[in-house]
This record gives sequence, structure tokens and C-alpha cells, in this order.
Amino acid sequence: MSSLPTTVRDPELPGRVEIYEVGPRDGLQNESAVIPVEVKAEFLDRLADAGLRTLEATSFVHPKWVPQLADAADLLARLERRDGLDYPVLTPNERGLDRAIEAGCDHVAVFASATETFAKRNLNRTLDEQFAMFEPTVTRAVREGLRVRAYVSMVFGDPWEGGVDPDQAAAVGARLMEMGCDQLSLGDTIGVATPAHVGAVLDACDARGVGIDRIAVHFHDTYGQALANTLAALRRGVTTVDASAGGLGGCPYAGSATGNLATEDLVWMLDGLGISHGVDLRALVGTSTWMAGHLGRPSPSRVVTALAQDS
Amino acid sequence: MSSLPTTVRDPELPGRVEIYEVGPRDGLQNESAVIPVEVKAEFLDRLADAGLRTLEATSFVHPKWVPQLADAADLLARLERRDGLDYPVLTPNERGLDRAIEAGCDHVAVFASATETFAKRNLNRTLDEQFAMFEPTVTRAVREGLRVRAYVSMVFGDPWEGGVDPDQAAAVGARLMEMGCDQLSLGDTIGVATPAHVGAVLDACDARGVGIDRIAVHFHDTYGQALANTLAALRRGVTTVDASAGGLGGCPYAGSATGNLATEDLVWMLDGLGISHGVDLRALVGTSTWMAGHLGRPSPSRVVTALAQDS
Repeated sequence: MSSLPTTVRDPELPGRVEIYEVGPRDGLQNESAVIPVEVKAEFLDRLADAGLRTLEATSFVHPKWVPQLADAADLLARLERRDGLDYPVLTPNERGLDRAIEAGCDHVAVFASATETFAKRNLNRTLDEQFAMFEPTVTRAVREGLRVRAYVSMVFGDPWEGGVDPDQAAAVGARLMEMGCDQLSLGDTIGVATPAHVGAVLDACDARGVGIDRIAVHFHDTYGQALANTLAALRRGVTTVDASAGGLGGCPYAGSATGNLATEDLVWMLDGLGISHGVDLRALVGTSTWMAGHLGRPSPSRVVTALAQDS
Repeated sequence: MSSLPTTVRDPELPGRVEIYEVGPRDGLQNESAVIPVEVKAEFLDRLADAGLRTLEATSFVHPKWVPQLADAADLLARLERRDGLDYPVLTPNERGLDRAIEAGCDHVAVFASATETFAKRNLNRTLDEQFAMFEPTVTRAVREGLRVRAYVSMVFGDPWEGGVDPDQAAAVGARLMEMGCDQLSLGDTIGVATPAHVGAVLDACDARGVGIDRIAVHFHDTYGQALANTLAALRRGVTTVDASAGGLGGCPYAGSATGNLATEDLVWMLDGLGISHGVDLRALVGTSTWMAGHLGRPSPSRVVTALAQDS
């Protein structure tokens, strides 16, 4: 099957996509198994060997909240820094930023909510109050020359409020971009988005002054929609797509074990569309299969499942 | 979550889609468990109760080849015929057609290969010779006033030859349509299609005189691409989509247990896009969960997995 998929270009789609790999952070953070730091380091090295260039490595969140990532500084010290490799890390607050800078990071990310209820549950703040929490972190990071990514979660719906007004999600994103963030990742945390909804949110972002070149999409496959939504985003000109090797990471706020869009399923589609991305699919599948062994559960990725059985 | 997904219309997509349900035939044929005829009859009745209107019920293939469907006549005799319900059946040859007519069927289907190797393996015929097999069946069915659907399998690639020239697949389809078939179902039997490839095959069909209004698409989710491919087909104007309740049916020619596009995953996307289809998603999920119990394996559908855990 190595000649498949057949490549057929679509001139309306971008020629290149940057895959922002979230498996090591977003993925492992939401897996119940705790993975030893040396396995995490090998995981990141293998993902880089497979051709991924942007790998969110870990989070400098308080270990009390996310014990899975308590080894953040240790992990970063073990990584081989290579030219062209970018290891952004999540920094929820100024203390996290201090630790990230101490560890030599030059690219950080903050994580906001699009909805009132999730802001309350995740940060114990109102939608407005969350900005007061992020502003000093973002401002200082920018002043110190770091790049800052803004995540907005629950963009397409949340488990408590249901649907979310696209303009409300866009307003949260725009406010973070105005603080100095350079990229906005629109997160479908519970996987409820459908293709035209994606277009509506991109329109709302544009209306708030956040252009398509600064937007990334972050889909979950809870209801099987992640790749169709990605196709809709690519058709609108989005060129940065978040994905998780092997589909690592369930979502604690959705009632399914299916989490992030699997990087392999994305790569298969990009290969078929002739969109360059730099990733070696077989090497990636091998890495995800190896990681699934450490996690003690099979990868939910369709491509990993199919190719692991072929080999 | 009953308010989700949020509905956002896309004016470039059709307003209504006909779901052609293949679970009872294509699905159960490819499951290893043999299901009692009364369970199959209940399955079809429950699918009809959930709002599906076109249900491929069974196949009049020789029981030696597909023992799972040896009860075809018995099953049809048990079904409650209701107004507006259509139960097409597969008829591989004239003997099968005789049995279908005897059972009162008014809608049949034939199943051809797009590739030389699969024609040889499945029918022990060359690509050209397969038409000699179908022609008397199709001609007689049409003469007797039956509707005839033409399936073409391996349209986007096969496990032996790899990629398939879109024009070759279209030529096979066009030849069946010239015999008098009224609908052409383009089958991605091993799930290797990607969205622009779908467009290329639809173009090739159009060039061969088979317009979009006579085409159905039949995707497998082996590599997670089925719904993105469906979106691409809808954007081209296709309004008939084959799907299998709960994603029933692996593929004996692909190395994965993941088979047909799950009807539930399709319905979620159509609901989000505001495309009408007539199906009650919760009733359908209940039916697939019940059937999974009879098959002794969980449904591979993302939506069934998520909603069954929610409830």
C-alpha cells in the first residue's frame, strides 16, 4: 500500500501546512497513565526524527493540578535542541513563565476559555477576569522576546452551555492577540464542530481583526468530525493545524475516549491532497504504536490501526 | 448535549441528502458473527423506525459464498412493507435476480470491480468479461420494471494494483449505466480516497456522461477519511450517501476492522450543516448499540461511542 493514497491536488487548498504537534503535552496530560520522563524525551526525539518541527513539549502548570507533567523542567533539559526544532510549552501564569524562561524556552502558550462556565470551572474566574490572569504573563513574555500562542478552548460548544456564539469565541481570541500573542489556536475541546461552523468562527475572527494567517485550528475527533472540519479550515486558507500523534489524549469534558485529531489521519489526507508537511508517515505510525505500548491502550487513530495491522 | 451540534448552513451544499443504508447487507456480510434472521428483521425494522428510508436488506448471492446472508428470502418475508420504504437487494447474477423477483423485490443492485485484479479475484473474470455477467441481469431487471443500482468497487485504489486511474473507474461505471442502471455508487472499498481524488473521479464520470444526480458515494473509514471525502462529494453536488449503521462491516481486503462510514457520524455532520435527512440520531445510536451487543464487539463509530457513554 506504499503507493497509496493517490495524490490529487486541489488548487483551492494551501500548498503547505505546518503541523503543530500537541501529543506530548495535550495528549499525555489527558491520559491517565503517568509516563516516565525518559520515555517522554524519547517520544519527543522520535517525533522530531519523523519530521515534526513544532512540538508542544510540556506545561509549566502547578504539579498539583497536572501531576502527569510535573517533570517539565527535567524533560526540557533532556531534549536535544536541533536547528529548526521548536518546543513551545504551556505557561498558565507568571510563575509558569518564570520556570519556562529558566528552562530556556523561547515559545510559550496560554490557554483561555471561550465560555463563562468553563472559565469558572477551569480557572475559577469569569470570562473577563481570565484576561487579568493572562495579561501580565503575555506582556512579560513578549517583552522578553518570546513568541506567545493563544489557545481558546470550547470555541464550538461546551458541555454546560451547549452552543457558543462565534463572535463570543472570536472576541476572546482577539483580546489575547491584542495583548501580543502571535498565533490563535481555535479549540474544539469537546469535538462538536461541523464544517460550516468552522467557517462562521473564522469569519467572526476576521471581523475582529484576526486574519487567517495568524490562526491555527485544534479539532477533537469525539464525533468523527475532526478531519472534515480541517478540510473546511484549509479551504478557508488556514495553514497551521494542531494534531496529536496517535490521537493521544481523551478529553475530560467529553464522554468519550476519543480525543485530539490524530496526526497520522491528518498526514494521510495531506499526502492525498499533495500538501507538503515534512512528516514521514511510517516513522510516525511506528512511534505512536511504541507509545501505545507504554500507555497500555491501542491508538484510536484509524491510520495507526490500519497500518500497524498491515505491517 | 441535545442542543449540539450547532447548525450552520453552507449555501454551497445541498439542502437534503438521501442516506442509503448498507449496514444490513454490506455491514453484516463482512462481520464474522452470523446473526439470526429474526434479529436481522428487527434490525431493519428499527432502522426504518429511526427514519431511514432506503435500506439495502440482503443479497441473493449463492449461500456458499456468503453464508451470512443465506436467509435472504426468509428475511424479506418477515419485513413489514411500509409506504415510502425501499429495500434494495444485491443480485450478483440472473439466478439471484430470479430469487429477488420471487421475493417481491422492485429494486436490485449489481456489484462490479474497477480493477482487473479485483475482478479476477472476486468474480474470476477480466474487467471486460464482468460486463457479460451483469448485462443479462441488468437488462432483464430493467425490462421487468425494477430499478437497478450499479456498485463499482475499488474505485480509488485496490490492495494489489495500488492507485486506479479515475477514467478507468468511470468507464466501468458508465458501461453499467448504459445497460440501464439508474444509480452509480462509487465505492472506496479499502478507504484510501482523499477529497480531491473524489473530485477527480466525479469529473471523470461527468466526462463519460454520468451526471452528478445519478451518483452515490460509498466511503470506508479505514484511514479516517470517509467524512472529509463525503464533504468533498457534497460540495460537488452529490446527494446520495451510502453509510452503515454503527459503522458495521470491516473490509476483508483491508487490514483493519474499520469498515463503512458510520451512519451516525454522517448524521452528526449533516445535522451541523443543516442538511435534512430524516433520521433520528438518538434512535439510530440505540439501534447500533443493541446490534453491537449481538455482534459481540463495540461499534467503531465515533458518535455511537461518545453518545452511548453520555447516556
